[in-house]
Amino acid sequence: MKAKATIHLSSRPSVISYAAVGGKKEGEGPLGDYFDKINDDPYLSCTTYEQAESKLQKQAVLICLNKAGLQPENVDVLFGGDLLNQCVSTTYGVRSFEIPFLGIYGACSTMSEGLALSSIFTDKGVCQKAMAVTSSHFCTAERQYRFPLTYAGQRPPTAQWTVTAGASLLVSQHCKAPYVKACTIGRIVDMDITDANNMGAAMAPAAFDTIRNFFEETGKTPSEFDCIVTGDLGKVGSRLFCDLMQRHGIDVSANHKDCGLMMYHMTDQDVHAGASGCGCAGSALCGYFLPKLKAGEIKNMLFAATGALLSPTTTQQGESIPCISHLVWLSSEDN
Amino acid sequence: MKAKATIHLSSRPSVISYAAVGGKKEGEGPLGDYFDKINDDPYLSCTTYEQAESKLQKQAVLICLNKAGLQPENVDVLFGGDLLNQCVSTTYGVRSFEIPFLGIYGACSTMSEGLALSSIFTDKGVCQKAMAVTSSHFCTAERQYRFPLTYAGQRPPTAQWTVTAGASLLVSQHCKAPYVKACTIGRIVDMDITDANNMGAAMAPAAFDTIRNFFEETGKTPSEFDCIVTGDLGKVGSRLFCDLMQRHGIDVSANHKDCGLMMYHMTDQDVHAGASGCGCAGSALCGYFLPKLKAGEIKNMLFAATGALLSPTTTQQGESIPCISHLVWLSSEDN
Repeated sequence: MKAKATIHLSSRPSVISYAAVGGKKEGEGPLGDYFDKINDDPYLSCTTYEQAESKLQKQAVLICLNKAGLQPENVDVLFGGDLLNQCVSTTYGVRSFEIPFLGIYGACSTMSEGLALSSIFTDKGVCQKAMAVTSSHFCTAERQYRFPLTYAGQRPPTAQWTVTAGASLLVSQHCKAPYVKACTIGRIVDMDITDANNMGAAMAPAAFDTIRNFFEETGKTPSEFDCIVTGDLGKVGSRLFCDLMQRHGIDVSANHKDCGLMMYHMTDQDVHAGASGCGCAGSALCGYFLPKLKAGEIKNMLFAATGALLSPTTTQQGESIPCISHLVWLSSEDN
Repeated sequence: MKAKATIHLSSRPSVISYAAVGGKKEGEGPLGDYFDKINDDPYLSCTTYEQAESKLQKQAVLICLNKAGLQPENVDVLFGGDLLNQCVSTTYGVRSFEIPFLGIYGACSTMSEGLALSSIFTDKGVCQKAMAVTSSHFCTAERQYRFPLTYAGQRPPTAQWTVTAGASLLVSQHCKAPYVKACTIGRIVDMDITDANNMGAAMAPAAFDTIRNFFEETGKTPSEFDCIVTGDLGKVGSRLFCDLMQRHGIDVSANHKDCGLMMYHMTDQDVHAGASGCGCAGSALCGYFLPKLKAGEIKNMLFAATGALLSPTTTQQGESIPCISHLVWLSSEDN
């Protein structure tokens, strides 16, 4: 029998602060008003796109700390990661803060991995305040995964648009809503999909595996949650995900939301199958969902960001795409 | 005042199993006899070097589990990472095990990050058995960080040789020696060094920062440890590290060891300033040090692997090299 993947957080740690910063296109999308800051300049006044992405992380951490009235030295540990080779958006973005740092890699599932680890650390008394940060940038992702923008490569209909955004949140030992009640650590799922322009289809089975594990291990049902949020499955992946759940007797069609379908106006913003990138689920959580949990507009939600753990090298070598999804149960209710 | 970076593990979790696998050159080095398995073929019967590196991880995990008489389903969580873009040695190496997986990124400090997290998880009762794995491969690292091997690029005297090795260990709740007594989470340290062929010099200040923090926060002194082990500082970095410690009144010259200086015969094996790579500190720990701790030949040791958090892109953009070191206190004594 497999080990249980769900960890119950009995002390219910609190997400006491959060921040989301975005780019111009994100500002023009349906979530535009929910960002703490919009950067119209894709370079953010830096000389390279990579430096710009690092600056998104720096902005997100500073705004998050500022909203909590805290300084970097008040944070015990920072979990951070991103999509760039060797996670350099993070390491260069946060190096000046001098916070004890644990680098994580979960591709676009990074925010749920960081939130899960921050919640576990505070719940178990490892530390008092733990922070998570992530980012993505359209221009750095295009350069690395596909082509430099100036090549003007054609995108197939299943392709998703990498979100330019940074997101950060701060978890503290139990004090106020929203609370983190449990998390489910994902397993790597590889269904032998090899099309790197169809990440949604590759990632859907990972979201399904983790969310099903959560329901099986806790005895909870979908109707107990206002929303069940996946990371960035987009149009293709979301349909597959709901189908997979349905076939296994779990109906999430009434309360499933996908951050990849929320970020842009799907008819006007020319993003094909939707949004993607670590900043997608990260900024949707920190900009849109966490304030609604705090206000009690959302009572219970599952947040399951999804990541595709491939690299351009493995794609060139004809490998399939291993994927993962970590889940966090967030609640406005202290019980 | 900065938050304390040292976490005491009061229940003293046990490292119950460990495995190190290496390549031909590592087999011919001073630690050759300490590896569980030596692979003479750099391809490990695979078609690409990247697949070969993934296989090093798979071998290390399987031997580690086998020595403990356990199956993958007995492991609650696996922490893994490596140097390749998007950590693909790990994700492809461990995907078949279906163990709940948390990806980490700490460059060559990965084994100390994985060991620290595994120890924290078991100490705090998050789970019963946690595993850590990492790897590096000379040929994948050369291709990615410098040049494909066939270019026959010249290496400067400060350059280090990436170790071909995989390493894995399994941490359980308290049962037998060796025990993990504490760990110190590193901060990112960037001393403005920009020479990507001189990683030792870049990383030495990070090792110094973390080890000094440990001594300051615990009140311990170097003489209480049989050895104080750094990851892969090599010749240049080791000298700098000892100098930095000395200047701050901490004399580690009598018991400092560096995995980067232990892996190869420095006069015969043409490795310039020494060894490097996630597999360097990882296999030295799992092959050489842990068995000596188990046998009681080493009573107390500090293991502080070091990582350089740069990428080829940031080097090309003229950026300096942010570095990190995480520390773990290992002991054969149950008190």
